[in-house]
Amino acid sequence: MMQSDHPYYAVIFTSKRSPEVTDGYHATAELMIELAKEQPGFIGVESARAADGVGITVSYWQSEDAIRKWKEHSEHLDAQSKGRSSWYEWFHVRVCRVEREYTFGASDERE
Amino acid sequence: MMQSDHPYYAVIFTSKRSPEVTDGYHATAELMIELAKEQPGFIGVESARAADGVGITVSYWQSEDAIRKWKEHSEHLDAQSKGRSSWYEWFHVRVCRVEREYTFGASDERE
Repeated sequence: MMQSDHPYYAVIFTSKRSPEVTDGYHATAELMIELAKEQPGFIGVESARAADGVGITVSYWQSEDAIRKWKEHSEHLDAQSKGRSSWYEWFHVRVCRVEREYTFGASDERE
Repeated sequence: MMQSDHPYYAVIFTSKRSPEVTDGYHATAELMIELAKEQPGFIGVESARAADGVGITVSYWQSEDAIRKWKEHSEHLDAQSKGRSSWYEWFHVRVCRVEREYTFGASDERE
C-alpha cells in the first residue's frame, strides 16, 4: 500500500456475515473494492475474514470528504442496502484520523 | 464491545504471519489480549485473520496515553520483540482517532 502524508483517514468496517451468504455477495464485495480504488482520494485497503464469519476491512482515504463521497456513490448505496437486508448480521463502521504509524518488514508487498 | 465517548482511539495492527508459526505464538497472542483488557483505558478489541496469514487486529483505547503505556508494558515489549524476530513477516501499526461511527444490527454480541 502506498504511504500517504498525515493526517489521512481510515474507515474500519467490522462485520459478521450471515451464515448463508448468497445472492451475489462475493461478486459485489469484489466490485466494491474495485470501485473504491477508482474513487478520488482512495489510498488503499486491507481485509481479513476469519472462519467464524467476523471480518475487518480497513480502507484508507486522503480526506473525510472523499469518504463521504464514496459512501454516497450510487452503486455503493445499492451494496449497502443489500448488506443490511441480506448479507450481514451486524456491522460497525468507524471513521478515524490516522495520527501516526510504524512498520516492520516488507509491508510494501501489499496493495 | 462497550461504546465509548468520542473521541477515542483505535490501534490498527495489520500483520502477515510467518508460514511456520511456532514457539509460543498462540499462547502469547491470547495472553496479550487478556493483558490488554486489564490495562487502564482499554475499551475493546476486534480481530480477524484470513487463511493466507494476513490478519487485522483493532484495539480501542480511551487516550493516546493509554496506548503509549500499553506499548511499553514489559510483557508486551517481550511479545513485540518475539513478533519481530519470529512470528511476523511484516506488520503495520496505525494509531488513529475515532471521529464518528455507526452501527447496524446486534453488534453488542461482541466483546
